[in-house]
Amino acid sequence: MLVGAITPDWGDPASQAGHSSQSGAPLGGWKFSNSKDGVFAEYFHVNEADANMAVIPASVPDEVAVYCADMLSTGFMGAEYGDIPIGGTVAVFAQGPLGLMVTVGAKLRGAGLIIGVESVPRRQELARTYGADVIVDFTKEDVVQRILDLTGGEGVDTAVEALGADITFQQAIKVTKAGGTISNIGYHGDGDFVHIPRIEWGVGMAEKTIKTGLCPGGRLRMSRLLCVLEMKRVDPTLMTTHTFPFAEIDRAFEIMDKKLDGVLKPLIVF
Amino acid sequence: MLVGAITPDWGDPASQAGHSSQSGAPLGGWKFSNSKDGVFAEYFHVNEADANMAVIPASVPDEVAVYCADMLSTGFMGAEYGDIPIGGTVAVFAQGPLGLMVTVGAKLRGAGLIIGVESVPRRQELARTYGADVIVDFTKEDVVQRILDLTGGEGVDTAVEALGADITFQQAIKVTKAGGTISNIGYHGDGDFVHIPRIEWGVGMAEKTIKTGLCPGGRLRMSRLLCVLEMKRVDPTLMTTHTFPFAEIDRAFEIMDKKLDGVLKPLIVF
Amino acid sequence: MLVGAITPDWGDPASQAGHSSQSGAPLGGWKFSNSKDGVFAEYFHVNEADANMAVIPASVPDEVAVYCADMLSTGFMGAEYGDIPIGGTVAVFAQGPLGLMVTVGAKLRGAGLIIGVESVPRRQELARTYGADVIVDFTKEDVVQRILDLTGGEGVDTAVEALGADITFQQAIKVTKAGGTISNIGYHGDGDFVHIPRIEWGVGMAEKTIKTGLCPGGRLRMSRLLCVLEMKRVDPTLMTTHTFPFAEIDRAFEIMDKKLDGVLKPLIVF
Amino acid sequence: MLVGAITPDWGDPASQAGHSSQSGAPLGGWKFSNSKDGVFAEYFHVNEADANMAVIPASVPDEVAVYCADMLSTGFMGAEYGDIPIGGTVAVFAQGPLGLMVTVGAKLRGAGLIIGVESVPRRQELARTYGADVIVDFTKEDVVQRILDLTGGEGVDTAVEALGADITFQQAIKVTKAGGTISNIGYHGDGDFVHIPRIEWGVGMAEKTIKTGLCPGGRLRMSRLLCVLEMKRVDPTLMTTHTFPFAEIDRAFEIMDKKLDGVLKPLIVF
Repeated sequence: MLVGAITPDWGDPASQAGHSSQSGAPLGGWKFSNSKDGVFAEYFHVNEADANMAVIPASVPDEVAVYCADMLSTGFMGAEYGDIPIGGTVAVFAQGPLGLMVTVGAKLRGAGLIIGVESVPRRQELARTYGADVIVDFTKEDVVQRILDLTGGEGVDTAVEALGADITFQQAIKVTKAGGTISNIGYHGDGDFVHIPRIEWGVGMAEKTIKTGLCPGGRLRMSRLLCVLEMKRVDPTLMTTHTFPFAEIDRAFEIMDKKLDGVLKPLIVF
Repeated sequence: MLVGAITPDWGDPASQAGHSSQSGAPLGGWKFSNSKDGVFAEYFHVNEADANMAVIPASVPDEVAVYCADMLSTGFMGAEYGDIPIGGTVAVFAQGPLGLMVTVGAKLRGAGLIIGVESVPRRQELARTYGADVIVDFTKEDVVQRILDLTGGEGVDTAVEALGADITFQQAIKVTKAGGTISNIGYHGDGDFVHIPRIEWGVGMAEKTIKTGLCPGGRLRMSRLLCVLEMKRVDPTLMTTHTFPFAEIDRAFEIMDKKLDGVLKPLIVF
Repeated sequence: MLVGAITPDWGDPASQAGHSSQSGAPLGGWKFSNSKDGVFAEYFHVNEADANMAVIPASVPDEVAVYCADMLSTGFMGAEYGDIPIGGTVAVFAQGPLGLMVTVGAKLRGAGLIIGVESVPRRQELARTYGADVIVDFTKEDVVQRILDLTGGEGVDTAVEALGADITFQQAIKVTKAGGTISNIGYHGDGDFVHIPRIEWGVGMAEKTIKTGLCPGGRLRMSRLLCVLEMKRVDPTLMTTHTFPFAEIDRAFEIMDKKLDGVLKPLIVF
Repeated sequence: MLVGAITPDWGDPASQAGHSSQSGAPLGGWKFSNSKDGVFAEYFHVNEADANMAVIPASVPDEVAVYCADMLSTGFMGAEYGDIPIGGTVAVFAQGPLGLMVTVGAKLRGAGLIIGVESVPRRQELARTYGADVIVDFTKEDVVQRILDLTGGEGVDTAVEALGADITFQQAIKVTKAGGTISNIGYHGDGDFVHIPRIEWGVGMAEKTIKTGLCPGGRLRMSRLLCVLEMKRVDPTLMTTHTFPFAEIDRAFEIMDKKLDGVLKPLIVF
């Protein structure tokens, strides 16, 4: 059985309004690692288990399925909330594990040109494998200018912020065409404000929609993501750079926390 | 015949994408008073006239119909882009002519509780007449706290910014519930940035959508607004505080520019 | 406390997909009077009570609030699913209690011209009171032709079928313009098929969308409808033609069943 | 330069409402081969040429690009109007050239399980190549029962009718789950009525939405489809079973008309 990172309270008014990740309170569906302990324990409690767990198909190995819980759900959401038309142009800011899954999501929604913004060679390479048509390296070029050039000066239909930094959020707005969508999935952890560049936002009139979201959870979502894996539309294990036995879980957390050894995602094996 | 304030180029890709006010360039449909002269002249040129003009029904006087061109179209858009559910809660920041028409638009979309934010007595009164259920006066109370109190602590489904100020934009985000929509119709004229309050925005994860727009134009839009007037759903002339003959047009502009004499809207009679 | 006619299972995949009335099975949210007894009993069981009940505001009398359970929820849904633009044209087929609440819903969504199709004088009169701008009487005129005439030959943006008859369903398709929406809320109880008129449906290419639905339930929906009543946007008690004490409930059912004495809705008082 | 099969009048109210294929009249954007002659002539007239033509990228050969005009635009529309969620289940009725492009479209939108209904071996094979996960052969099995079995008894999220027959339209409704969408792109050429199976339609209450459409045209649409080809997301030339010089165009029409020699699509070379 698979449990999502987010386990909504489905009867809550926010869920009834279609925003289950916000059930109970803003971001209230996010219980594990926030308000509930224990997903590494032998047993742990899942609220509304029938509604928040999904059966893993026999053909999908656990080490593949585990990516549905957060990476696929959040990453694909970044693309879905971006309202990408078939053949539309997309820029994805950062190609860490979430950004890479946004890239996959953009391809799954039928994007035309997919532009990945990333400077780390290994991530650039993986981005290409996952569907990025062009990589823009912010250490070597002006990101905004380059993306405008790639789109004939008009900007992209959809920009996805997958880092959680003020600077990339601003760039996302700048490279989006009038009428386009900025989809933010990055966690913004610093400062009192996130900044909208006034002019490029069209002084509040250019119909650039700014959307945000928190990883969708629930049985239906997990089942659909598992179906994507069962049909072999994507192989998320390309992101598994390390594997540890459960006894070495502290080491796994350490390399994630300090971003050591080129880690993308470590797998914990029981 | 009625011409909208915005006269889109309908064949432009932005129009084909459903964003006609952005045709040609961001805000490109806004030609009169920007890139084209003469709407007060005896004759003036209308691009794609057949697509950008509508017949005024015989039962709608010119001094009523004229409000469709901008006030009704922009104000109603503020409500429409706010995605108001029937019975939903709405806060409208500022009750000038545009904000008043947002209030009407919110009522036309079936809003439950409509909260108008305004300090000028005459505008407060008109807001009540046009459908505001509660008025919040920012000179006398903490706007954010009051709106949260009015909504049982959870915030509104929709907040509309109809002033174009950084402070009200921030308040609009703060009073909107997770999963709600901030609809900006104010023209933001100052500063490098417009500020999103990071925490109340849910650190980029509370599904608070920020939308913007520019007055929709075109024959279809104008016809539908005229139909609203024909069916007597609203009387915009309550906003007509002054009437001038054409010879005194300079005076009309002056009182608008300097906001003299409690002006809301002056009417120029030919 | 108010309980809706439909009490969804909120954790069900259909609810997670946004179709709570279909939870468990098609029409599965419809438990009372179908699979569960007892709403006239002293006590009765409500599944997921916290999610399916709402507090009635002190200012809303019980005899008003009771209309939220089904009439307002279903009727307004007919308008909502019809995707009515502000100033759009709407035709509502039949002005029984549900159709009357569709008429109210259309007005609440900002419709321009609202056309009610009805032959019974008392219902015609009530339709006008509730917002119908024109009444078309099918016993006296060709409904389709009349509605086309009223809309300059092009048809309405939205047609709502609120009767559940094949003939009115066909007419609804015929009077809807290309690109418009047919919203069906009528219960179709007879025959193997419901018939789409091929030519007027544009041989399957005229972008006439056919939607259906079942009364939305749940705490959020009920709360929003109660808010509409609290703000006095509509008075549903105009439909209360009869009042009975609980001891005479059989008589109430009889007049409803046989449509005696010009009944619209009987109220049972405890 | 590429011209779409449909060349809308962009200023028309139907286009302004977002239904450009219906401009002027129902199906009114469909001019070539209906009301205008000559696309095989040395010169031919294109209405609103700037809005209805797109530049073919240098890397896309003409024999590939030509598929955008109708097959890709209509086929992808079938998937787009079907509102397919990532990981959703889809059934496509008929795998002729249009149905095959619906299959591609479903994959481009991120469908999970894609079921193609087809009996001709060559088309079955091509369907698999283009993305169908399972083929259902109506000559060998009960289509409705098989699709229900493949989806655990609940039916698909989206069914696309790509044949234009009453029987497949009925099956499409039967295999769609409550809350799902039936997307019709087939041209229904016979009979007074198209039949909705009443019970499986949920007696008009199961929230099964029936959508239809006509090939989207215009510069933006063509540009986006060309971008899909430029990025090599699909190779439509697998459908090119025959090639003829212009001198033998009559033969090409004959084999299409009589469906000779296993033809899918013939290419005319100038």
